[in-house]
Amino acid sequence: MCGIIGVVGKSEVASALYDALTVLQHRGQDAAGIATIDGSRLRLHKGNGLVQDVFQREHMLALRGTVGIGHCRYPTAGSEGSNEAQPLYVNSPYGIALGHNGNLVNTDTLRREMFEDDRRHINTDSDSEFLLNVLAHEMQIQERMALSSDHIFKAVAGVHHRCIGGYAVVSLVLGYGLLAFRDPHGIRPLVLGERDTPDGKEYAVASESVAFDILGFRLLRDVRPGEGILITLDGELHTRQCAEPVSHAPCIFEYVYLARPDSMIEDVSVYKARLRMGERLAAKIERLKPGHGIDSVIPIPDTARTAASSLAQALGVPMREGFVKNRYIGRTFIMPGQSERVKSVRRKLNAIDLEFRNKNVLLVDDSIVRGTTSRQIIQMAREAGASRVYFASAAPPVRYPNIYGIDMPTAAELVAHGRSEEEIEKLLGADWLVYQDLADLIASIAEGNDNLDAFDTSCFSGEYVTGVEPTYLDELEFSRSDEAKDRRRQAS
Amino acid sequence: MCGIIGVVGKSEVASALYDALTVLQHRGQDAAGIATIDGSRLRLHKGNGLVQDVFQREHMLALRGTVGIGHCRYPTAGSEGSNEAQPLYVNSPYGIALGHNGNLVNTDTLRREMFEDDRRHINTDSDSEFLLNVLAHEMQIQERMALSSDHIFKAVAGVHHRCIGGYAVVSLVLGYGLLAFRDPHGIRPLVLGERDTPDGKEYAVASESVAFDILGFRLLRDVRPGEGILITLDGELHTRQCAEPVSHAPCIFEYVYLARPDSMIEDVSVYKARLRMGERLAAKIERLKPGHGIDSVIPIPDTARTAASSLAQALGVPMREGFVKNRYIGRTFIMPGQSERVKSVRRKLNAIDLEFRNKNVLLVDDSIVRGTTSRQIIQMAREAGASRVYFASAAPPVRYPNIYGIDMPTAAELVAHGRSEEEIEKLLGADWLVYQDLADLIASIAEGNDNLDAFDTSCFSGEYVTGVEPTYLDELEFSRSDEAKDRRRQAS
Amino acid sequence: MCGIIGVVGKSEVASALYDALTVLQHRGQDAAGIATIDGSRLRLHKGNGLVQDVFQREHMLALRGTVGIGHCRYPTAGSEGSNEAQPLYVNSPYGIALGHNGNLVNTDTLRREMFEDDRRHINTDSDSEFLLNVLAHEMQIQERMALSSDHIFKAVAGVHHRCIGGYAVVSLVLGYGLLAFRDPHGIRPLVLGERDTPDGKEYAVASESVAFDILGFRLLRDVRPGEGILITLDGELHTRQCAEPVSHAPCIFEYVYLARPDSMIEDVSVYKARLRMGERLAAKIERLKPGHGIDSVIPIPDTARTAASSLAQALGVPMREGFVKNRYIGRTFIMPGQSERVKSVRRKLNAIDLEFRNKNVLLVDDSIVRGTTSRQIIQMAREAGASRVYFASAAPPVRYPNIYGIDMPTAAELVAHGRSEEEIEKLLGADWLVYQDLADLIASIAEGNDNLDAFDTSCFSGEYVTGVEPTYLDELEFSRSDEAKDRRRQAS
Amino acid sequence: MCGIIGVVGKSEVASALYDALTVLQHRGQDAAGIATIDGSRLRLHKGNGLVQDVFQREHMLALRGTVGIGHCRYPTAGSEGSNEAQPLYVNSPYGIALGHNGNLVNTDTLRREMFEDDRRHINTDSDSEFLLNVLAHEMQIQERMALSSDHIFKAVAGVHHRCIGGYAVVSLVLGYGLLAFRDPHGIRPLVLGERDTPDGKEYAVASESVAFDILGFRLLRDVRPGEGILITLDGELHTRQCAEPVSHAPCIFEYVYLARPDSMIEDVSVYKARLRMGERLAAKIERLKPGHGIDSVIPIPDTARTAASSLAQALGVPMREGFVKNRYIGRTFIMPGQSERVKSVRRKLNAIDLEFRNKNVLLVDDSIVRGTTSRQIIQMAREAGASRVYFASAAPPVRYPNIYGIDMPTAAELVAHGRSEEEIEKLLGADWLVYQDLADLIASIAEGNDNLDAFDTSCFSGEYVTGVEPTYLDELEFSRSDEAKDRRRQAS
Repeated sequence: MCGIIGVVGKSEVASALYDALTVLQHRGQDAAGIATIDGSRLRLHKGNGLVQDVFQREHMLALRGTVGIGHCRYPTAGSEGSNEAQPLYVNSPYGIALGHNGNLVNTDTLRREMFEDDRRHINTDSDSEFLLNVLAHEMQIQERMALSSDHIFKAVAGVHHRCIGGYAVVSLVLGYGLLAFRDPHGIRPLVLGERDTPDGKEYAVASESVAFDILGFRLLRDVRPGEGILITLDGELHTRQCAEPVSHAPCIFEYVYLARPDSMIEDVSVYKARLRMGERLAAKIERLKPGHGIDSVIPIPDTARTAASSLAQALGVPMREGFVKNRYIGRTFIMPGQSERVKSVRRKLNAIDLEFRNKNVLLVDDSIVRGTTSRQIIQMAREAGASRVYFASAAPPVRYPNIYGIDMPTAAELVAHGRSEEEIEKLLGADWLVYQDLADLIASIAEGNDNLDAFDTSCFSGEYVTGVEPTYLDELEFSRSDEAKDRRRQAS
Repeated sequence: MCGIIGVVGKSEVASALYDALTVLQHRGQDAAGIATIDGSRLRLHKGNGLVQDVFQREHMLALRGTVGIGHCRYPTAGSEGSNEAQPLYVNSPYGIALGHNGNLVNTDTLRREMFEDDRRHINTDSDSEFLLNVLAHEMQIQERMALSSDHIFKAVAGVHHRCIGGYAVVSLVLGYGLLAFRDPHGIRPLVLGERDTPDGKEYAVASESVAFDILGFRLLRDVRPGEGILITLDGELHTRQCAEPVSHAPCIFEYVYLARPDSMIEDVSVYKARLRMGERLAAKIERLKPGHGIDSVIPIPDTARTAASSLAQALGVPMREGFVKNRYIGRTFIMPGQSERVKSVRRKLNAIDLEFRNKNVLLVDDSIVRGTTSRQIIQMAREAGASRVYFASAAPPVRYPNIYGIDMPTAAELVAHGRSEEEIEKLLGADWLVYQDLADLIASIAEGNDNLDAFDTSCFSGEYVTGVEPTYLDELEFSRSDEAKDRRRQAS
Repeated sequence: MCGIIGVVGKSEVASALYDALTVLQHRGQDAAGIATIDGSRLRLHKGNGLVQDVFQREHMLALRGTVGIGHCRYPTAGSEGSNEAQPLYVNSPYGIALGHNGNLVNTDTLRREMFEDDRRHINTDSDSEFLLNVLAHEMQIQERMALSSDHIFKAVAGVHHRCIGGYAVVSLVLGYGLLAFRDPHGIRPLVLGERDTPDGKEYAVASESVAFDILGFRLLRDVRPGEGILITLDGELHTRQCAEPVSHAPCIFEYVYLARPDSMIEDVSVYKARLRMGERLAAKIERLKPGHGIDSVIPIPDTARTAASSLAQALGVPMREGFVKNRYIGRTFIMPGQSERVKSVRRKLNAIDLEFRNKNVLLVDDSIVRGTTSRQIIQMAREAGASRVYFASAAPPVRYPNIYGIDMPTAAELVAHGRSEEEIEKLLGADWLVYQDLADLIASIAEGNDNLDAFDTSCFSGEYVTGVEPTYLDELEFSRSDEAKDRRRQAS
Repeated sequence: MCGIIGVVGKSEVASALYDALTVLQHRGQDAAGIATIDGSRLRLHKGNGLVQDVFQREHMLALRGTVGIGHCRYPTAGSEGSNEAQPLYVNSPYGIALGHNGNLVNTDTLRREMFEDDRRHINTDSDSEFLLNVLAHEMQIQERMALSSDHIFKAVAGVHHRCIGGYAVVSLVLGYGLLAFRDPHGIRPLVLGERDTPDGKEYAVASESVAFDILGFRLLRDVRPGEGILITLDGELHTRQCAEPVSHAPCIFEYVYLARPDSMIEDVSVYKARLRMGERLAAKIERLKPGHGIDSVIPIPDTARTAASSLAQALGVPMREGFVKNRYIGRTFIMPGQSERVKSVRRKLNAIDLEFRNKNVLLVDDSIVRGTTSRQIIQMAREAGASRVYFASAAPPVRYPNIYGIDMPTAAELVAHGRSEEEIEKLLGADWLVYQDLADLIASIAEGNDNLDAFDTSCFSGEYVTGVEPTYLDELEFSRSDEAKDRRRQAS
């Protein structure tokens, strides 16, 4: 998962890009970068770490220009070691910089084409490098002398034609401006905003609308699936549909836990959607367990708090902050002659015993992925003296891997993969386990926008909207496993 | 404000001290340090920054030993530039290391005595350096050859006699063990815990009981005001009352916002106390404004959330997370030719407009100090479309400076200093402003412990339990002002 | 000035490249970089600083592969701020990395061609970026599918055709191997070496033969002017003359002070050449000043020592180390309220008074550039008590700027520019000043190799072997001036 | 070995201390520190690394004051890990900072006394910590209220009484000024200088007179053995003989290779002394090998160059720079699957083959310690084609360890320990080996100062002027061995 931002301003944009990245930082804390167009030069600074650590005063001053893009990264598919921070850059043709959120599922084919047909060397496993080079090649085969928005949008159409997956892209084309586009299914989010200044309109695109809030931009609308957005250096906005219409299927996980609650995605308030998830889950609980005897609802902080609050209210039960999150997590040092003392979940959460002792508690989390944390949390609740520990997940069972840019374990590592809800309940050690129904989850979101009816729900349903080669999933299963990661880390 | 931890273990303690510091980190993010006794050597590592940044693997491995102390610092009175990270160390007599939380109010007298009578040079304005040197001197004038716990406790009594203020101290005496003590009024918190191991009992002292939770220690009790705690190298626990009994007056601000909610202080759950603050404040609201017409209660995250939840429940009004906190705050870069664009509070909070539009909202914060943030938040609520913006403070008006170790602005910079509640309401721009009564605040806490009836409430009442020279307050007013801080920063 | 190295080995080459760079470090201490071919990946690490600071263990381990190049940089023409460390890399076509020593004089023309004809964006003023992109373009227009050594050498011929200046280049072509070449006049040095291993022959190219000495390679020969050297991944050596024959004119300054004395350049020992410079200068002194009355010859350390020793021997006068070089030069800190105390030359040299007092001394330096240092040194000799201070330069007067890659001030800043030797003598404050004659300097070198008769002597003669546009020299005059440098530093 | 400097100025001294440390840096490159008296505060900055790396602009600005000391360190006896950078500081009594060059031989006794009698904890093995605490204790037992120069000199006498070894010390006493002193035998060097300013005289003390050269101070004289030098804050100079007269025995190794040639030590020019060493060695060569057939004299750079030049002149043979020193030494990286390729001496030196081929060469070094380097150099000379390789050492055989502060291997690791000259010659592989006679070495130095007749020559003679416990030498043998060092490095 990553966060992207692009701004075409009427004055220097570096500090706006920086501020935007800080509110998109939850989408990726691994690396950050900013590129700007400074006349005929591209300015670029990037590095590993948080935005606040990567950029010092001297870097900001060097990022001159009124047009720029920013990126913050969380590693997904591929070797984390070789993943460069973004934006990436190629100097031919024109000079193009690019940052992207998402994942491609046909990189094997692309790598072959790149080498054989395009003679472009791909030096990493990063699919951003693929996207950048496909875009560059598609621009290179356009008319030579008089590059226009037509040619650029044709190149975007070429990208849509060749690249399969979920992606939202911001890029700079030297001499032209800011280009942004989104995959034909609209899997990964991208919004468009504007701001009036005395010198004219400024435009911005971003992964989430919170970036506009901090910059004082107005949210205009979501970028459409397959649409290209070109904002020229002098601030003119061009838009074009660059792909044949296919099903619009935004990633449902953005609403479950990825996005900030204060963001609007596809014109739906993430916060409101989560409130509705809580309400629908409450209805299911009342339905399945009429005399539930729950004394209090306890959210697993922080994401689950919104759904838990509406769920508690709907059940007529108080919500209590039984778990306190440790904001400062240190490393684990194992000293000579010692084994690890502290359970990993204890480094993240602490229980307030008074809220558990002799009570029937309903713990609420946004979703259950590996199950390891949930099991430890349930055990903590028991050790704190709870009579009964119920567990509710605001999302359905996660049974399949994500291939569109969300870092998630392999199928084999998902606790719900190939297990019934009863089996999971037993594994987690809960007195009762309840999952949201997929239909309810969909309805919780769709209720906010009449035009929205389909989602990428592959993690729950196993149905991948873009289609996918079976071999791809097998390889993914191998390369994403924890053992594979360990191997790569040692090698790098 | 600072966090302190001390452990006498049966095996290496460095990683336990590290883990404890990470959960005490909210008490000070400026600097961190750990000292251990390694046979006849003192091992010490400290530095500026977060615990996770100060300690790398090589430092941890060098911090050998089964007895140690840790410290994390937030700067209080005095020049921040010259404040060294703690623990501090003197080699005469014996070798003593010390870390402390709190503040002394008679350092001018002590400096004179130190120089003239004790010939000890105090190189900084840090009151920790005073405490360490008074302790060292008091130990130096004891019997030479056969230092015993008696002599050490006599030295602690000497410290209590000479040092006036609020302080909780952990220290290491080479050849003897861990010494901890707390000022005679018990202003600053300090708790004692233990853990059973196959090799015998381990003891620990800490600023807050959360440190015990992560270490798997049991909370035994609070260290008593004026009490000395000596745990010898081989794990024997000695305790002694080292000061004449005076009023027990713990700092009330720990409950209002300093301490973590999952801590027990003076046998009172901070979380429970905050719930009661919400309930009592709700009662006052109902009393003063019977048909209040409030549509929702919106906490200012994170501290106010607990009180807001019980307040909302008591009022029968839903609590809504109308503000989302930005977890990643960057620096402010002002680019050439630009002025600052983003209001400072917007870097910290973002409003979810849907929760404000056409609603009467009651914003709840734990307290109001300078008022600057509150005013900006109220304005944000209005810009988000609120019909009416009420504001509730879970604590009474903060009218006087803190002199016992909490970093707070000067009286002149407190919005409530010399102003009536009506004047403050107007200044903040709220449609209605309501403060907790001091009696209610006290009751909210005291209700949890029958033996607890007095507190240091000086910030609200102007009554300082230790007494204080008027000149001290004047100088404080000068040295803590923002201008003075700027001057020092430039000079250092 | 820069140092370059390339190795095609039978086992890992990173540590060999590192060792070679440390003995080439005198050619550039500003930045360093290494690139290797690791299967289908290019590995690259570079940074600002000395080789020993840029490369840490983890970087070395990541630089896998048996084929690689290295570079150390001293900034020449252009804005130092925007000069990236080398090797530079483009991914289209094939993936090419390149490092270079030298300077181009037709970058304005190239920039226009690059943009208009090749649609390649040049992002800096670095002429290495030009060389890389011209090479890349010339390779891109070759046959697509079956790249052979023929195609690669044709591309080198294209570079020679388009790029005017002095340059020695090492580059990696992914999938093919190591390519090295040298400008048609052979201005910048480049040597070829080999080593036998149990697994077969290894080849290397380097700026100076000292790199072979530390690696245990044999010096085979100099790379010929305009020649291309291609060593394939499996270690096959291909060579080809890629440019029409023009005058062979190696840079004479390499012998005067750039190169290490233990290097062989154009089959001439730099050390021997310097000895001959001393002898010829002695002859001139005896000729001009038969009863010279010189008591001792004192070299300015370190470069002048060789020539001074043979000069002293030829004059029959003892050589004395009257100046001691400070090996550790610190920064200049000017404290508040103080002006600079120490003359800059005093930070570099200290005089041993006993060697000067009441003596007629002949100071010998390799050359005189700005004259500032020489003037201060002469003054130091006087202050140390010398009766008479003579000054000899082993090179003729430096009157014109260098445009082939040696960092030298503008004409206006050269003390000899537009001045007679008498005027210079007076300006420097010497009792007598003697310069080597250009014919003697040439003879000193040419004596070592019968086939060598021409040199680039432009700094002394103003004759530039490649030809040069008059506007180029004017712009250079502007951009290299100290004021221009200051301006750029502030801007960057 | 260490370098020390102290200045009492009429304006800020930090930059002068910095400049002085850069020219003393050859005495220690491990760590550096500066302390100044800023009114009632001690300012201190120190760290590991070169002076130029340890001090940045902000540190220099914080080192306010007109009185200060500086130190650069090379580790000697004791665990390198626990050796802190100097100056060290204790705050009781008065506040004293201290830096020192040398070594104590009775630290075991001192440690016991410190603990039992003085109750001062010594936390490291650093003898500087002993010196500081003995000085502090001796000052603590003086009159309380009216500290005068008398009391301070009495304390110095106390140090001389208790501390046995070679030491030169600079220290700051807060409220009083700069105190410097030298051990009763005057083993380690210390010189006194002055400078006139419009505001009055400034004084300085330093390890070597080169520090005065760069600061523009006049060398007044050497500090006398056992003498104390006190310069008060307002610049008044007090001197006092603080120890009973014993033999004056400066360390002879300073002249052999430690000191810079441009320094005066005991009123003897180090440079002149080295010239005389060459002359006397030439006489011995002519005596022992009348028809020596030597074609050229080749110094091992850099220290041996001076002696080699006078030796060559006396023999009537040319001196040639056959070895070139690598100024930039990198680390040794051993890549996976490789063993070390490059011999360690090849990283330091490169041979110019032309100077060796078919010649009889006399290699000259300042001394031979372990013999490892000499053996490799002789082999390099042979590989370069020398017909015969003679080797001359300007010092006698080094047969015993140094215990007065020079880092030297244990006796067992000295090639000359327990071996005849013939055996050494064979081990080194030289065709002929010749050592300077001790009488000649002494005469070379003493010739420069009629009052100087004794030296500490223990490395050559085994006679230790202070006397030494046999157990001390045994323990030293153990703790300084390479294995012991490895062990400590792993432990620390």
